[in-house]
Amino acid sequence: MAGLRPQFLQGVFAAVLTPLDSAGAPDHAAMARHCRWLLANGCDGLSVLGTTGEANSFSVDEREAILESLVEAGIPGAALLPGTGCCALPDTVRLSRRAVALGAAGVLVLPPFYYKTVSDDGLFASIATVVEQIADPRLRVYLYHFPQMSGVPFSSHLIERLLQAYPDTIAGMKDSSGDLGTMVANARAFPNFAVFSGSDEFLLALLREGGAGCITAVCNVAAFLAAKVLAAHRAGDAAAAERSQEALTRVRKTIAAHPLTAALKEIMARHSGDETWRHIRPPLTPLPPAQIATLLTELDRLQFRPPALP
Amino acid sequence: MAGLRPQFLQGVFAAVLTPLDSAGAPDHAAMARHCRWLLANGCDGLSVLGTTGEANSFSVDEREAILESLVEAGIPGAALLPGTGCCALPDTVRLSRRAVALGAAGVLVLPPFYYKTVSDDGLFASIATVVEQIADPRLRVYLYHFPQMSGVPFSSHLIERLLQAYPDTIAGMKDSSGDLGTMVANARAFPNFAVFSGSDEFLLALLREGGAGCITAVCNVAAFLAAKVLAAHRAGDAAAAERSQEALTRVRKTIAAHPLTAALKEIMARHSGDETWRHIRPPLTPLPPAQIATLLTELDRLQFRPPALP
Repeated sequence: MAGLRPQFLQGVFAAVLTPLDSAGAPDHAAMARHCRWLLANGCDGLSVLGTTGEANSFSVDEREAILESLVEAGIPGAALLPGTGCCALPDTVRLSRRAVALGAAGVLVLPPFYYKTVSDDGLFASIATVVEQIADPRLRVYLYHFPQMSGVPFSSHLIERLLQAYPDTIAGMKDSSGDLGTMVANARAFPNFAVFSGSDEFLLALLREGGAGCITAVCNVAAFLAAKVLAAHRAGDAAAAERSQEALTRVRKTIAAHPLTAALKEIMARHSGDETWRHIRPPLTPLPPAQIATLLTELDRLQFRPPALP
Repeated sequence: MAGLRPQFLQGVFAAVLTPLDSAGAPDHAAMARHCRWLLANGCDGLSVLGTTGEANSFSVDEREAILESLVEAGIPGAALLPGTGCCALPDTVRLSRRAVALGAAGVLVLPPFYYKTVSDDGLFASIATVVEQIADPRLRVYLYHFPQMSGVPFSSHLIERLLQAYPDTIAGMKDSSGDLGTMVANARAFPNFAVFSGSDEFLLALLREGGAGCITAVCNVAAFLAAKVLAAHRAGDAAAAERSQEALTRVRKTIAAHPLTAALKEIMARHSGDETWRHIRPPLTPLPPAQIATLLTELDRLQFRPPALP
């Protein structure tokens, strides 16, 4: 991380869940509470409105309202890395511009993800359109590479072209591919480009190769473990870092055996005693009772408990 | 087709291109002209705002404005089968409701397509949400099955559940999978469910098995050929139907060797002499010159010419 410019984000980020009310609408107050709890318990930042946050199940209006409510509730913009990448570039521009105006430290941008097998020229033109239409020196774009979900990868060649064209704006990547080799290659190849792992199990390995940290779903409940990995790594205590990484990886594997967003909402429902945490918007569905039992029993076996709620 | 209720759509539909102006915005006047020309040259209906129409590259506001402009320009609602399926259900509800209010004969609904490997329960809940929130007896839903692009298939089991729950609303499917076996199986299994092929080459085979027709990109320039297939089939002239199908299939294969939307826009640019037809929104890109030359030369070799423009 020593090579990253100070304005670049680094550390432990949760891909923040979006609590829903009983009508299925985003519950702004519950989300602000969750964000404050995360920042108090290991998170350096909050990647709201990503895959785990069900962002693509919300209209642009709903997404803007969520962002505005968080800032109004006092969540610092400097901690916010909201997802803003939509299929339609006018939507990506609108959301990213709003995020910048609200003081967000950066925006996490999916490529337009409906059309598949598009060319790197088309993806370059897409990101260039966003950067040039926003035309704000405060804009920091983090590319969101999640080919299993988006179907549209960001290649290393495309990263290189984007960095050459917009060196002050293209700031990093969240890599949810699960391919540590690619994360490490990009972290090594591109100085001043902050590579975050989208999977908890690669946090320490990526930090050791100059990566910036992690942005993960599991950090909604286990950021304190990721923070221990980061602290031990920074302190040069390799053995302690490895022990914490192993604990984090065990929790990650247990949770990721189930659909992630639904599983995390179940964990929060039990932890808080608040059943509204189980609400999830279609096409996602709550875990069936048998899966809930398996998940919670296995987490108990690991003696895993999220930090106390206020 | 004899088994279909009369209010069900059938015949030859273009998956209509969206002309863009030099600023990259939808050109409403050019689109209305194109739609009129299609209806005068072999199209029974117009599936605007689908994959070929770059719908997912437009904001919901842009899509609503396109629909409204077509109706204002006198395109009959009874001929319109607009795509309205978005990732976010509030957007799908809003667009579908507007289409119904504008008199559209039906709506072509993609499943929410960001999340992959979602359950049939989640997809059922998604379509049920749309049907129940719109709550309009005029609503006719055509499911848009295009797993190669959406990553989210509609299974036959899910079709059956939807038909049982909403027999008056679930009206049919556009099947762009390229799998004739599935199209035929669904056409046979579900009476009063209009199965359209998304690929021209299966038109005659599907008509013979009780399918409703086709909804295709290539019908932007070759609907007159598809209309000949349909007319000969209806007249019971098997040999003439086969000859027209072969001609249509040759044209389809020549065009589909290139990215479809870009290739069709090039064909319209040459045919009309209007270079603005070449505009396309990222992430799609215009064909490179060498590909344009190959495409146009091969179409000339087939002696293919779209019908005269007015």
